[in-house]
Amino acid sequence: MTDTAHHPWLGALFGDEALSALWSADAQLAHYRSFEAALAHALEAAGRLPAGQGAAAAAHIATAPLDPAALAAGTARDGLPIPAFVRQLRAGAPRPEAIHTGATSQDVLDTALSLTLRATTELLIARLTTLDAALGALSHDHGAQPLMARTRMQAALPIKVADRIRSWQQPLADHIAALTAGRPRVERLQLGGPVGTRDAFAPDGDAIAAHMADTLGLASGPVWHSDRTAIADYAGRLSLITGSLGKIGQDVTLMAQQSLGDIALAGGGGSSAMAHKSNPILAELLVTLARFNATQLAGMHQALVHEQERSGAAWMLEWMILPQMALATGRALSAASTLCADITRLGGPDPQARP
Amino acid sequence: MTDTAHHPWLGALFGDEALSALWSADAQLAHYRSFEAALAHALEAAGRLPAGQGAAAAAHIATAPLDPAALAAGTARDGLPIPAFVRQLRAGAPRPEAIHTGATSQDVLDTALSLTLRATTELLIARLTTLDAALGALSHDHGAQPLMARTRMQAALPIKVADRIRSWQQPLADHIAALTAGRPRVERLQLGGPVGTRDAFAPDGDAIAAHMADTLGLASGPVWHSDRTAIADYAGRLSLITGSLGKIGQDVTLMAQQSLGDIALAGGGGSSAMAHKSNPILAELLVTLARFNATQLAGMHQALVHEQERSGAAWMLEWMILPQMALATGRALSAASTLCADITRLGGPDPQARP
Amino acid sequence: MTDTAHHPWLGALFGDEALSALWSADAQLAHYRSFEAALAHALEAAGRLPAGQGAAAAAHIATAPLDPAALAAGTARDGLPIPAFVRQLRAGAPRPEAIHTGATSQDVLDTALSLTLRATTELLIARLTTLDAALGALSHDHGAQPLMARTRMQAALPIKVADRIRSWQQPLADHIAALTAGRPRVERLQLGGPVGTRDAFAPDGDAIAAHMADTLGLASGPVWHSDRTAIADYAGRLSLITGSLGKIGQDVTLMAQQSLGDIALAGGGGSSAMAHKSNPILAELLVTLARFNATQLAGMHQALVHEQERSGAAWMLEWMILPQMALATGRALSAASTLCADITRLGGPDPQARP
Amino acid sequence: MTDTAHHPWLGALFGDEALSALWSADAQLAHYRSFEAALAHALEAAGRLPAGQGAAAAAHIATAPLDPAALAAGTARDGLPIPAFVRQLRAGAPRPEAIHTGATSQDVLDTALSLTLRATTELLIARLTTLDAALGALSHDHGAQPLMARTRMQAALPIKVADRIRSWQQPLADHIAALTAGRPRVERLQLGGPVGTRDAFAPDGDAIAAHMADTLGLASGPVWHSDRTAIADYAGRLSLITGSLGKIGQDVTLMAQQSLGDIALAGGGGSSAMAHKSNPILAELLVTLARFNATQLAGMHQALVHEQERSGAAWMLEWMILPQMALATGRALSAASTLCADITRLGGPDPQARP
Repeated sequence: MTDTAHHPWLGALFGDEALSALWSADAQLAHYRSFEAALAHALEAAGRLPAGQGAAAAAHIATAPLDPAALAAGTARDGLPIPAFVRQLRAGAPRPEAIHTGATSQDVLDTALSLTLRATTELLIARLTTLDAALGALSHDHGAQPLMARTRMQAALPIKVADRIRSWQQPLADHIAALTAGRPRVERLQLGGPVGTRDAFAPDGDAIAAHMADTLGLASGPVWHSDRTAIADYAGRLSLITGSLGKIGQDVTLMAQQSLGDIALAGGGGSSAMAHKSNPILAELLVTLARFNATQLAGMHQALVHEQERSGAAWMLEWMILPQMALATGRALSAASTLCADITRLGGPDPQARP
Repeated sequence: MTDTAHHPWLGALFGDEALSALWSADAQLAHYRSFEAALAHALEAAGRLPAGQGAAAAAHIATAPLDPAALAAGTARDGLPIPAFVRQLRAGAPRPEAIHTGATSQDVLDTALSLTLRATTELLIARLTTLDAALGALSHDHGAQPLMARTRMQAALPIKVADRIRSWQQPLADHIAALTAGRPRVERLQLGGPVGTRDAFAPDGDAIAAHMADTLGLASGPVWHSDRTAIADYAGRLSLITGSLGKIGQDVTLMAQQSLGDIALAGGGGSSAMAHKSNPILAELLVTLARFNATQLAGMHQALVHEQERSGAAWMLEWMILPQMALATGRALSAASTLCADITRLGGPDPQARP
Repeated sequence: MTDTAHHPWLGALFGDEALSALWSADAQLAHYRSFEAALAHALEAAGRLPAGQGAAAAAHIATAPLDPAALAAGTARDGLPIPAFVRQLRAGAPRPEAIHTGATSQDVLDTALSLTLRATTELLIARLTTLDAALGALSHDHGAQPLMARTRMQAALPIKVADRIRSWQQPLADHIAALTAGRPRVERLQLGGPVGTRDAFAPDGDAIAAHMADTLGLASGPVWHSDRTAIADYAGRLSLITGSLGKIGQDVTLMAQQSLGDIALAGGGGSSAMAHKSNPILAELLVTLARFNATQLAGMHQALVHEQERSGAAWMLEWMILPQMALATGRALSAASTLCADITRLGGPDPQARP
Repeated sequence: MTDTAHHPWLGALFGDEALSALWSADAQLAHYRSFEAALAHALEAAGRLPAGQGAAAAAHIATAPLDPAALAAGTARDGLPIPAFVRQLRAGAPRPEAIHTGATSQDVLDTALSLTLRATTELLIARLTTLDAALGALSHDHGAQPLMARTRMQAALPIKVADRIRSWQQPLADHIAALTAGRPRVERLQLGGPVGTRDAFAPDGDAIAAHMADTLGLASGPVWHSDRTAIADYAGRLSLITGSLGKIGQDVTLMAQQSLGDIALAGGGGSSAMAHKSNPILAELLVTLARFNATQLAGMHQALVHEQERSGAAWMLEWMILPQMALATGRALSAASTLCADITRLGGPDPQARP
C-alpha cells in the first residue's frame, strides 16, 4: 500500500498509466541519454571535440547497454545514479572523455526532470481541455435546470445549474494559461557543472548550453542548481489544479446526498454491506487528491531552503514529492472527466425524493 | 506569544510595522467603506438610484461613526462583521436602501482583501528591489573574493563570492516579475451578491462591477466567491519569496561558522551565557520565516476545497493564514536587507581563523 | 488581520481570553522571574551562594522593575529577550552574580514554556471535561431520536442520535487521558547551561535541577535543549483534539442542511444579504480550527531537525506556531461547548422540512 | 520516480524491503482473509452459525483462489476491494452467508491496517533498539573525545563526543516506550458493521468482537470507524522518530564539513564531477526523510475531519499517506544504523585539517 498508484488493486482507483509512463525509470533513463548525447554534440559544435567525435559519442550513448543493478548499487553508494550511469557509458566508449565532461550529476537529473515536466504539462493541458469541454457539455445539457445555491452549507437562493458549473469551469482556463505561460521557466536545460559556474566549459559555457537546449527543445538560461523557485511554483500549480477539482468533487458529494438529490450519477460504488447504496467514489477521490497535493506542497516549499551550491537533503525531498504530485494531478483530471460522463441528471426535481 | 509579530519584545524580531499597518483593523474598515461607497456611486451611475443619492450615500459611508464593539458582537453572532457594519452604516443614513443593496458580505471582505493585497504587493516589490540592489552592492564590493563552493555540505571547488551572490539574486527578479504580472488576477473587485450571480443587479451587474472596479482601481471580471485559485497562488508566491530568502539565510549561517569563516557580520546577537558569541540572528530568522510560510501554504491550498457557493470553513481558514504569510514575507525582506548591511566581509581569508 | 484571535472584531470569533492570558507577555515575564528566583534559591541550597543570598536575590528578582522597551531592543539584537532581561535584573541587584549564573537563555525560555503548557493543559482538560458532559447531556436529552446514518456522504441505515454522539464523545476521554499521562514529559524544568551539559554547576547540576524543579512544580530530568520530541508530541495532541472537534463541526454543518434537517440550532449567524438564513458559524469554525492546527503541526515537526546543541531557526519556528495551536485548541473547545448549548433539536422529524 | 522506494535504482537509497513486505498487497490480502476467517469462527462460537460451519467457512476463506484483476475492477467501481473480495470468497463457498455477514468493508480494511501496524511497530522497536545500541557503542568508542559544542551554528564551548551522542540517544528510549505503550490503542479490531453500531450482530456484537480480537491477537474495544485519533497519533510518532533521526543526520552533515572535521565516514558518496568528494549521503537522507514525514503528518491530521459514519475522502487520504510514512520511518532507522557503522572517527583532532 506504500504506492497506491501502482498497487495491484488500489491502482485501479489511484493509478494513471499515462502519467506513470512519463515518470517511469525507462523514461528517465532515456532522458539521461538525451542529455549526454546533446552534450556530446554541443562539445563538438563548440570545437571542444574533434569533428565527428561528438556525434560518435552520441551514437554510443544512445544505444550503450546499461545495467540497472549497477545503477542501483551506484545510487546506494553515491546518492544518485549518474556516476554509475556515466561509468557504464564510458566503458566501451570509443572516447570516454567525450562523455559527461564538464557536467555534473545534477545537470543530468534536473534536465531529465525538465523533459519530464514538459511531457507532463502537455498531458495536463490536454486533460484540462477535455475536462473543460465536458463541463461545457454538461452545462449545455443541464444548465437551465434550477438548483438551490448553498452558502455556508445552507440553502440560500435558487440559481441555475449553469451557474454552479461556471464556478467549476472558471479556474480551468486559468490553469491552462498558467501552465502554458510557465513553460519556459520550467522546461529549461540545467547545465552548471560541479559548482554551477560552467567553468569547465569556459569560455564556451553559454554556447554549449544554447546548443544543448536547442537540441533538447528546452529553454536555455542561467543555472538553477540551487534556485528551486520554478519547480516549487510548478508544484503549486499542480495543487491549484487538484484544489479546483477537489471543489468540484466536494460539491458533487454534497449534491449527491439523497435528501438534496441535486445530481444523479451512473456507476456509483457499491458497499459490501448495503446493496442499496451508490457511493460517489470519484467525487470523493477528487477531494482526497486535492488534500493530498495541498499537503505535499508544503514539502516542496521546505525544499526551497537549498543550502550552498547543492543540497542533497532538499533535492531528495523533491524527488520524493514532486512525481507523486504530478501523478495525483493527472489522475484527478481523468477522474473528473469520468465523473462528468457519469452524470445523468443535474439540478431539477429529484424524482426519488419528491414523488 | 500567540502573535510574535505584535508581541512587546518578540515583535522587535518578528514584527513589521509597515505590513501590520496594511492589514490593520483600521485599514480593513477603510476598505469596507471604500467598497460600499463605490457601490453607491455605481448604483447611481447605473440609474438604480436617483441622481445624487449614490453620492450622498457615499459621503455618509465615508464618515459614519462605527462602533467596534458592535462589529465584534456582530462577528461573534454572524461569523463576519459585515452585517453589523451595514446595520451601522444604514442607521442614520438618509436612504438606507442606497447602501450595500445587492451585495453580500463576501463582496466587501474579498474586495477589502484585494485592496490590501495591492498595497502589500507594492511594498513587497519595493523591498525586493531594495534587496536586489543591496545584493548587487555586496557583489560589487566583495564579488571578486574567493569562496569555497560547497555541494552536499562538502567543500567542492573554489568559486567567487559573486557566484554565490548571483544564486541569491537570481530568484528576486522572478519574484518581482511574477508579482507584477499577477496583479490583475489578485487586485480584483469581488461583486457577486448573495449567491455569486449578480442577479440582484440585473441587468446592470457587469456595468456596476466595471464602475466599482474603476473607482477602486481594481480589475473587474467574473465573480470569484468560490474560486480561490488566485489567492492560493499569491500565497504560493509569498512562500517562494521567503523560500529564496531562507536559502540566503541558511547559506549565511553556514558561512558564519567559525571554522569556515566565509563571512563577517556586524551586530550579531549576544548570549546570556557566552559573552564571546556572535550569533547570526537575522540569518536564522530567514530560515524560520521560510519554513513558517512553507508550512502555512498547505493550509491555503486545503482551503481551495471551497464547497458550493460559499464555504465558511474554508474562507475563515484563509483569514487565519494569509495575513500572517504576508507579514512574514515583509519581515523576511526587511531582515534580509538588514543582514546585507551587516556584512563586513565576504569570502577571502578569514583573519581570525588563520592568523 | 494578522492575528485573528486578538483582532478588534474577528477576535470575538477566534479569540480566547483565558488562553491568551496564559500566553501573554506578562505571564511569560512572570515565568522568567520564577525561573531565576528558583535558580537563586537552588544555588544557595547547593551551597554555591552564601546563606541568605539566594533568597535575597530571589526577592530582588520578584520585584525588580523591568523595561519592556529594553527587552524589545535586546530581542532585536540578541534574538531573544533573556540577555537584556538578565542585565536588567542584575542592575541594582545586591549580588549580580547570584542571578542566572550557570544558566542560559534557553533554560529560561523553555522552562517558561513548560509552566505555560502546565496551565494550558489544566485548562484544556477542564474544557474537555465540560464538553464531554455537554455531549453526555445532549445524548441524554436527544439520544433516543432516530437519525439516518450516512457513510461516504450517502444515507445508509437508521441509527439513534446517541450513536452519533457516542462517536463524538469517544476521543475526548482519550484526549484527557493522554494529556494527563503526558504531563511529566511536558511539564519539565529546562536547565542545561550554555551547551546543555550543566558543566557550570558541576558537581551540583542535578541537585540544583532537582531543587528548582521542586520549587517550580515541574519534573526534573535530562536536558532537552535539542530534543523537541515532547513539544512536537504535545502539538500533535492539540491537533488531535481540534481534529476530533472538527469532525463534530463537520457533522453539524451537514446535519444542519435544510433538506436533511437533522439538527436545529439557536443563534445561527445572519447574512448581510439573506435575512432568512441561519448559518452554523461555530460548527464551521470547528472545521477551520481543525484544518488550521493540522497545517501548523507540520511546522512543529519540521522544527524537530534541531541542529547541534541549539538551533535558533528551529526554535524560533516553535515560537511562531505552538502558541497559536494552543489558542486554537482552547477556542475550539469553548466553541464546541457553546455549539452544544445552541442545539435545540437533534434527529427526529424536522418540523420545517415535513410540514 | 513516483515511488522512490520501489524504483529500480532510487529504491536502493529510499527502499526498505522488510517494511515493503509488511505493507505489500499479498500481506494485506492475507490480513483480509484472517479477518473473515476470524469472523466466521466467532459467528459459530456465538451460535449464529451451526456447529462446524464457521470453521468450514474459515477453511474455505484461507485457501479460496482470488483473482487480483477482479479485485482491481471492484476497487475501480466500489472505491475499495472488499465487495469484490467477498464476492469471490462467497462464490464456491459451501455456505456463502457464513462469510462477511454483519461486517462492512471498513471492518476488513481497518483490521488489516491494525495487523500491519502491529508488525510495523515490532520492526520499528527492533530497529530503534539496534540503533540505540549502535549509538551506545559509538559513545563507548569515541565518547571521551573533545568536540566543539555549537549553538545557533556558532562555536560555543568544548564538550565531549559523549554529550552530543547523548542528545541523539535520548529520544530513542522515549520512542520505544511510546510505541510500546500505544500498542493497545493501535492494534485493535475494527468491527462495526455498515454504520458502526454492530446492530447486525445484536445481541452478540461485543462477544463476537471479543472472540475475533482474541483470534487475531488484537485489542477489542469500541468501534473506531470515524475516530481516527489513534491512527493520526501513530503517524505523529512515526514523524517524531524520523525527526529525531533527522536531527542526527543534520548534525552529521555539519560535522562532516571539512573545515570542522568533527567526523570521518567510510563509504561516502561519490560525485560524477569531483572525484575527491565524499558526500554524507545517508546523513542527508535522514534529513530528507524527517522533512518528508513532517510534511505528510499534516495530511493525516486533515483526515481527522472524518464526516458522519464514514468518510470516503478522509479515509482514502490515510491510505495514500500512512504507508509511506511507515516506510520512510523504517528506512530512516536502517539508514541511521548504517551511518553509525560508517563512522570511523568522532571528535578529536582532524588529521587532515590540522596536519
